[in-house]
Amino acid sequence: MKESPLFWPAVLKNDGLNVLDETLIPEKIRYIRVKNVDGAVKVIREMKTRAFGQFLVVLNAFLLEIRLMDQKQLSEAKKLARIQEVAQKLNKSRPTFPFSEVTGIVARWAVMAIDSKLKISPFVKRNTEGYLESIRGKRLDRVNRIAAIIQDQDRILTHCNVSGELAMAAAICKTDKKNVSIFATETRPYFQGAKLTAWELGLLGADVTLVADNAVAALMADGKVNKVIVGSDRSCANGDFANKIGTYQIAVLARQFGIPFHVLTQPSDKIRSLRDIPVEIRHKDELLKFEGRKTIRGKCGAFYPGFDVIPHDLITSAIAIGVKENE
Amino acid sequence: MKESPLFWPAVLKNDGLNVLDETLIPEKIRYIRVKNVDGAVKVIREMKTRAFGQFLVVLNAFLLEIRLMDQKQLSEAKKLARIQEVAQKLNKSRPTFPFSEVTGIVARWAVMAIDSKLKISPFVKRNTEGYLESIRGKRLDRVNRIAAIIQDQDRILTHCNVSGELAMAAAICKTDKKNVSIFATETRPYFQGAKLTAWELGLLGADVTLVADNAVAALMADGKVNKVIVGSDRSCANGDFANKIGTYQIAVLARQFGIPFHVLTQPSDKIRSLRDIPVEIRHKDELLKFEGRKTIRGKCGAFYPGFDVIPHDLITSAIAIGVKENE
Repeated sequence: MKESPLFWPAVLKNDGLNVLDETLIPEKIRYIRVKNVDGAVKVIREMKTRAFGQFLVVLNAFLLEIRLMDQKQLSEAKKLARIQEVAQKLNKSRPTFPFSEVTGIVARWAVMAIDSKLKISPFVKRNTEGYLESIRGKRLDRVNRIAAIIQDQDRILTHCNVSGELAMAAAICKTDKKNVSIFATETRPYFQGAKLTAWELGLLGADVTLVADNAVAALMADGKVNKVIVGSDRSCANGDFANKIGTYQIAVLARQFGIPFHVLTQPSDKIRSLRDIPVEIRHKDELLKFEGRKTIRGKCGAFYPGFDVIPHDLITSAIAIGVKENE
Repeated sequence: MKESPLFWPAVLKNDGLNVLDETLIPEKIRYIRVKNVDGAVKVIREMKTRAFGQFLVVLNAFLLEIRLMDQKQLSEAKKLARIQEVAQKLNKSRPTFPFSEVTGIVARWAVMAIDSKLKISPFVKRNTEGYLESIRGKRLDRVNRIAAIIQDQDRILTHCNVSGELAMAAAICKTDKKNVSIFATETRPYFQGAKLTAWELGLLGADVTLVADNAVAALMADGKVNKVIVGSDRSCANGDFANKIGTYQIAVLARQFGIPFHVLTQPSDKIRSLRDIPVEIRHKDELLKFEGRKTIRGKCGAFYPGFDVIPHDLITSAIAIGVKENE
C-alpha cells in the first residue's frame, strides 16, 4: 500500500526518533531527531506534530528511555521510577490532552514486570512495540474500509486532516480504477487542509481541489460533492464526537443537502456524550496573527474554539478503528 | 451620526476624487486621488474599492469629466459624445459588473439636456449630484432602520462587509444605551471581515469579536449569537439574493439553530430569481496564494466562487434600501 508521510509521522531509528515537522509542510519535508523524553515533550509542546503524531511520540518516548536505561545499566527499581517519571513528564506536556490514558498503560506494564519478576526493559519494550504494531494494523485495515465505501465518480469533501488514511484510501481507489475527486477545506486558522491534506493527496496522486471554509454550502448546492468523510479527535459512547472546528457546520450542511456524512471514529467507551467534552478555547492571537504578524488593527476580540463537538444524529456512518477486534 | 470611512469611500474635492484604498486597510488609511475617467477605471480594475465604492467612483467619474469639459469649453455635441465615451469606458472596466445600469442613467440625462435645449454640463451635474445625495439619504435612513431592529443584549453575526451601515447602526445603539456585541467572520480569501468590518466596528466604538469562517455552527450551538445581519450584492424580484461566498452556509445554519437572518437588500426589479444570476468563478490563485506567495505545493486545484446565491426562504427579513420612496 502506498503510504502517506502523515500516516506514521514518527519513526524509531537506531539513533533516535524521527518526527516529521508538520509545521514546515508543504514548504519543507524535514524530520526532527528526538533523543529522549525531554525532546519528545518539546516537539509535542511546540506542536511540531499533531493528534496521531503526538500519540506516536508519547509511546516512542518510552522506547527511547528504555535504550538509555539499558546503556546506564540502572537497577530494576530505578527503571520503574524512571518509567513513571517519563509518564509524568509526557502527561504535563499538554495539559488539555489526555496522554495519561496512554502513559498509564506503559507505566502499568512496568509494574506488571516487577510483580511478575520479569525484566522491565524487554517486557515494556515488547509490549509497547506490540501495541504500536497493532495500531498500525488497525489503521491500515481502516484505510481499506474507507476505500470500500468510496465509489466510482465520488466527489468527497473532507476537513482538516485525517493523518494519511483518506489519501491512502484514495490511492487504493485509483489502483482499483475508481475515478474519485476530493475537495479539501482550507481549515483556518492553521490551514491544515491546504498545507497537509491537499499536499498528501497530491503526493499520492489523488485529484484534489482546495476550497475556503466558507464555500461548503455553494459546493453542496451545486451538487459538486456527494459524500463527506472527516476524522475525529474524541468519540463518545453515544456516537457524539469532537473534531476540528468547522466540522459541525459541515455536518449540518450535509444533512440539509442530503449528503452522507462519514466519520472516522476513535475508541469511545471512556466518554458518555459531547456534554462531557470541554472545548478548548485557544488564545485569540492564533486568529488575529498570521505567521506572527497581526492581521488587524485596533481593538478587536477573537473567539477560537479549538474544536467542534458534533451530535451523533448528524452522522450517516461511523468508521471506527479496530472494530474487528472489538466485535 | 458617527460615520464609517467605508460608508462613503469616494469623496469629490476641488482637485479631484478621493478614493479610499481599501486594499491597504487596516495597515494604512490612504486615499487615492482620481483626476479623470482613466483614473476611475484604474481604481475599479485594481479593486482599490469594492461594491458601493465602485458605484460612487462611476458616478463621480462623470462629475470629474464635466469639470474637464467645462475647462476646455467643448461644444454641446462634443460634450454629449464625451459623456457617452466615459460611460463606455466605465462599462468596460469590470465586464461582469452591471455598471451600464448606472452609466446609462447619466448618458440619458445628457441626451435629455440636448432634447430640451438645456446646457449639458449643469443639467447632468445637478442630476448626478442629486442622485448621489438621494442615495446617501436612503443609506443613512437604512442605518437607522438597522439600529431599530437591534435590541439591548443582541449578539449579532455578520459576514464580509456591508460598507459602514452595520458599524454606524452599532454606534447609534451605543448612544441609545443598547448593549450590543458583534461577531465578524474573517471572510476568506480576502479577509474583508477581519480587515474592513472588524476595523470599522472598532473605529466606531462597537464591541467586535473575530471568528474564523468555520466557527459559525459552534457560535450558534453555544447561543453566542442571536441575530444575523448580512448585506447583498444583487437582489431578485422573488427575494433571492447574491452575496459574498459564505453567506449561504450562514443562512442554512441560522435556520437550523432558529436564529433570525436579516439581509440588507438592493433594488430588485431587474432580476427574477437566483437562477438568473451567473456566479463568477474566480481564478484559483486567489485561493492558492496568500499575499502573492503560494501557500501549497504540488498539484492542487482550487474552487473559488466569488459569491453565493441564497434562496429567499432562508431570509427572516429583508431590509431594503429606499423603501420609503417605493412605498
